[in-house]
Amino acid sequence: MNPETDLWQQDANNKREGKFAISPTRQENFSAWYQEVIKAANLAENSVVRGCMVIKPNGMGIWDRIRTVFDKMLKEVGVQNVYFPVFIPLSYFQKEAEHAEGFATEVAVVTHRRLEKDGEGVLQPAGKLDEPLIVRPTSEMIIGQSMSDWIQSYRDLPLKLNQWCNVVRMEMRPRLFLRTTEFLWHEGHSAHASAEEAFESTKLMHQIYESFIRHTLAIPVVPGEKTPQERFAGAERTLTLEAMMQDRKALQAATSHYLGQNFGKAMNIKFQSQRGEVEYAYTTSWGMSTRMIGALIMTHSDDDGLRLPPRIAPTHVIILPIVPREELRVEILEYAGKIAASLKMLQYNGEPLSVEIDGRDIRGGQKNWEAVKRGIPLRIEVGPKEASSGNVILMRRDYAPNNKASTRLENLPAVSLAVLDEIQTKYYNSAERHLLANIRLDITDIEELRQFFTPKNEGNPEIHGGWVRGKWSEDPQTLDTLKNMKLTIRCIPFDQTGAEGKCVITGKPARLDVIYGKAY
Amino acid sequence: MNPETDLWQQDANNKREGKFAISPTRQENFSAWYQEVIKAANLAENSVVRGCMVIKPNGMGIWDRIRTVFDKMLKEVGVQNVYFPVFIPLSYFQKEAEHAEGFATEVAVVTHRRLEKDGEGVLQPAGKLDEPLIVRPTSEMIIGQSMSDWIQSYRDLPLKLNQWCNVVRMEMRPRLFLRTTEFLWHEGHSAHASAEEAFESTKLMHQIYESFIRHTLAIPVVPGEKTPQERFAGAERTLTLEAMMQDRKALQAATSHYLGQNFGKAMNIKFQSQRGEVEYAYTTSWGMSTRMIGALIMTHSDDDGLRLPPRIAPTHVIILPIVPREELRVEILEYAGKIAASLKMLQYNGEPLSVEIDGRDIRGGQKNWEAVKRGIPLRIEVGPKEASSGNVILMRRDYAPNNKASTRLENLPAVSLAVLDEIQTKYYNSAERHLLANIRLDITDIEELRQFFTPKNEGNPEIHGGWVRGKWSEDPQTLDTLKNMKLTIRCIPFDQTGAEGKCVITGKPARLDVIYGKAY
Repeated sequence: MNPETDLWQQDANNKREGKFAISPTRQENFSAWYQEVIKAANLAENSVVRGCMVIKPNGMGIWDRIRTVFDKMLKEVGVQNVYFPVFIPLSYFQKEAEHAEGFATEVAVVTHRRLEKDGEGVLQPAGKLDEPLIVRPTSEMIIGQSMSDWIQSYRDLPLKLNQWCNVVRMEMRPRLFLRTTEFLWHEGHSAHASAEEAFESTKLMHQIYESFIRHTLAIPVVPGEKTPQERFAGAERTLTLEAMMQDRKALQAATSHYLGQNFGKAMNIKFQSQRGEVEYAYTTSWGMSTRMIGALIMTHSDDDGLRLPPRIAPTHVIILPIVPREELRVEILEYAGKIAASLKMLQYNGEPLSVEIDGRDIRGGQKNWEAVKRGIPLRIEVGPKEASSGNVILMRRDYAPNNKASTRLENLPAVSLAVLDEIQTKYYNSAERHLLANIRLDITDIEELRQFFTPKNEGNPEIHGGWVRGKWSEDPQTLDTLKNMKLTIRCIPFDQTGAEGKCVITGKPARLDVIYGKAY
Repeated sequence: MNPETDLWQQDANNKREGKFAISPTRQENFSAWYQEVIKAANLAENSVVRGCMVIKPNGMGIWDRIRTVFDKMLKEVGVQNVYFPVFIPLSYFQKEAEHAEGFATEVAVVTHRRLEKDGEGVLQPAGKLDEPLIVRPTSEMIIGQSMSDWIQSYRDLPLKLNQWCNVVRMEMRPRLFLRTTEFLWHEGHSAHASAEEAFESTKLMHQIYESFIRHTLAIPVVPGEKTPQERFAGAERTLTLEAMMQDRKALQAATSHYLGQNFGKAMNIKFQSQRGEVEYAYTTSWGMSTRMIGALIMTHSDDDGLRLPPRIAPTHVIILPIVPREELRVEILEYAGKIAASLKMLQYNGEPLSVEIDGRDIRGGQKNWEAVKRGIPLRIEVGPKEASSGNVILMRRDYAPNNKASTRLENLPAVSLAVLDEIQTKYYNSAERHLLANIRLDITDIEELRQFFTPKNEGNPEIHGGWVRGKWSEDPQTLDTLKNMKLTIRCIPFDQTGAEGKCVITGKPARLDVIYGKAY
């Protein structure tokens, strides 16, 4: 591995002797490390319901922040929140054939409406429904049904709706946040009077995702379009944002679908145009899920645990009172309260600064390590010396856990805001260096490609070369070759060179640039 | 009917000739009026999924406000947000027998995990699950399961969790917001080391609901306890808040349950106490749902449609530009924008004032009536005269729709805030007068009771006497009598006189004061 481009070897401040808080480290076993980071930060765990997770308070805090920040961005472009039923009658579900087939292998089906005791007094399903109900895996069909009622004329368009809800896709190989049978997401659905307007709207949502993911989540992405084979079931075009995790695998962050008139026709969404003709509406859909918490973890965290970009951290600053003797407790806790009060008055990124005090009667070292593993950007330690002198000790999550600096209390507000901004930028820059350094442009034939994607680290097969940007001939037979190599085309990036070259897979002439990679 | 105590005849400002916006009126047919208010305000509608509703943008705006305001109140008392699976395996669901039986008649059951085409190419349920999954009607069982993993010692207690989610209870007679198969709610669940602490916590949540419902929703309530027969399935005690709708029926607003050790034992939630003994935890649960939107409508609205208390209104002020001639459009819209900008800088109840401009090219009268029917507290009309003179025309939702007052633009911020406060107080006071005037204290035997609950208005059988506060002997046979009269005991109010008297139903000596009433 190249130390220059390995995120976890970059930060000089983090070099130190001894053990890290998370075992195994990223180098030793990336996927086990991922599970351990989640456990150490108390974000989520597997539930007794197969494939479903329990999102714990620290994990839910992140999702609540994502919801708050992103919901405002949606409202600014005229999207309105709604709520549609969790169930879709089977007959509605199969109105768009391609869509229904795309989801048929993974839907939960409700068939009964009550429970009755059997001969042994055990409750069993009873009251069979006339028509089975599908638990929504996505809501195009049920929202399209209402759109067909609500839309009569071009004056009713565009219509832009959004809901924050749970969806269910039965999952055989679950992984916390990344693939779970039930997950939380937002799903947007819009209807338009023309193909052009609908596609422009798809692009706008795609840009809003890009802005949110880069500037709030501090995750750099490659924007592009999916190949026909990788599109959403029923879509005419799917736009995607591809992020690179620290193991160099790709994670599809948020997708925006231009659905043409496919769903308009299937659901009979008609409108009278300005010219007086009756036409089918053009629709779009777009979504982002709790999967983004997985992306945050795998982009920013290190071998000491979670690292949260300040703009998405539910807690910006944690104050750690250190009480060496009982008689000092009151004084030190009062000082901690005073610090918290002064920080809570500050605004960070348009919201009050979020400050926590760890007032528990446990060792200072334990408090410190727990805050490190939770990824809180800024830690403030106060003991008797600080309380009497009016100083505070600052510790930053982007520095080594034992790296401490002292400052005067009166400087703390300005210092805190500056440090949070610095951490936000640093996390983004670090992830962007990692992304750019691991996209290879010079791989031109299939043998080199195979070589590049062969794991370099025997103990950690997840870690492989990175991504390859190269030509693709669009030849259908390339797909089998890729499948055998466990590769996919992540996207056709928007910035095309347009130059003619050779397809990396077939060697045939090709003009399209694509990103080849392994993916979550 | 007594005009003194009929809400819809009280407000002198609202007396006018001619028609009202909602037909039928409350007097003519209260339940049809309710449906029409929802339709006119565009809040929600029935969906194609039996018993389920679609919450439209104006309705969702109210729920989003409820969520935002109440979530803050929960966080202030140390409640943490989480998310648990929507599914409960059948074996877990029936661990607490009374609880399972209470919900058995109304649960949706998932039995299959995919769809497969039949001989005719139609998708049908396939992949039968080993164990059926219950779609949560409430989450005691699935959250209790995690509590049993998370709690080891008294140091882990109290544990206070909350989730905002959807729940499903199959409903045979649905009614928008009041009874729907699926609804949105929040549900809180806590675990404690002692019965006293758990019950104190139940009371605290009950008080938080009372404060929120009175001060934010402007709905007066009678706090009390449910009789054993009306408790939550599996609870030892259920605290309730009973509100009186304008038709004088009761609506149970929010309930808080003290569960004792019932669920602790059923789910094996054990902890080591401070004395070193292993005990079962004492648990509580409490919830509030989209039903509160129904309560808001039936408490405050009038024959012109919805009226929203300012503290819960998604839009506080709407600006209605009136453009008589095309060449004035730019000037008037600019003036409207200037007004909006000056109002958006204000804080109301701790949040920025929410201001909307209705810039549509439609008649002023239509704009005004739509805003009336949506219940927006304050309307501001601006035409050419206002734009040139620097005045604005104010219209208040608590006054008749054509009641206008003029003020200078520079006075608008102060006037707006004062009017919003005034409306909030007025709605509450008006509802409280209605409640107090319609609780009868002087009904002492069953014949008078029967007479009181006989509909007075032939055309509108929903409207009956009100509530009766009287004695109850706790005799089980009273329940059949009440059932036959379609009456329930709404609650045992906290403020008991303690005096001995005669049971209204049986005439036997009784000490307990209860509220008798018809209910939603």
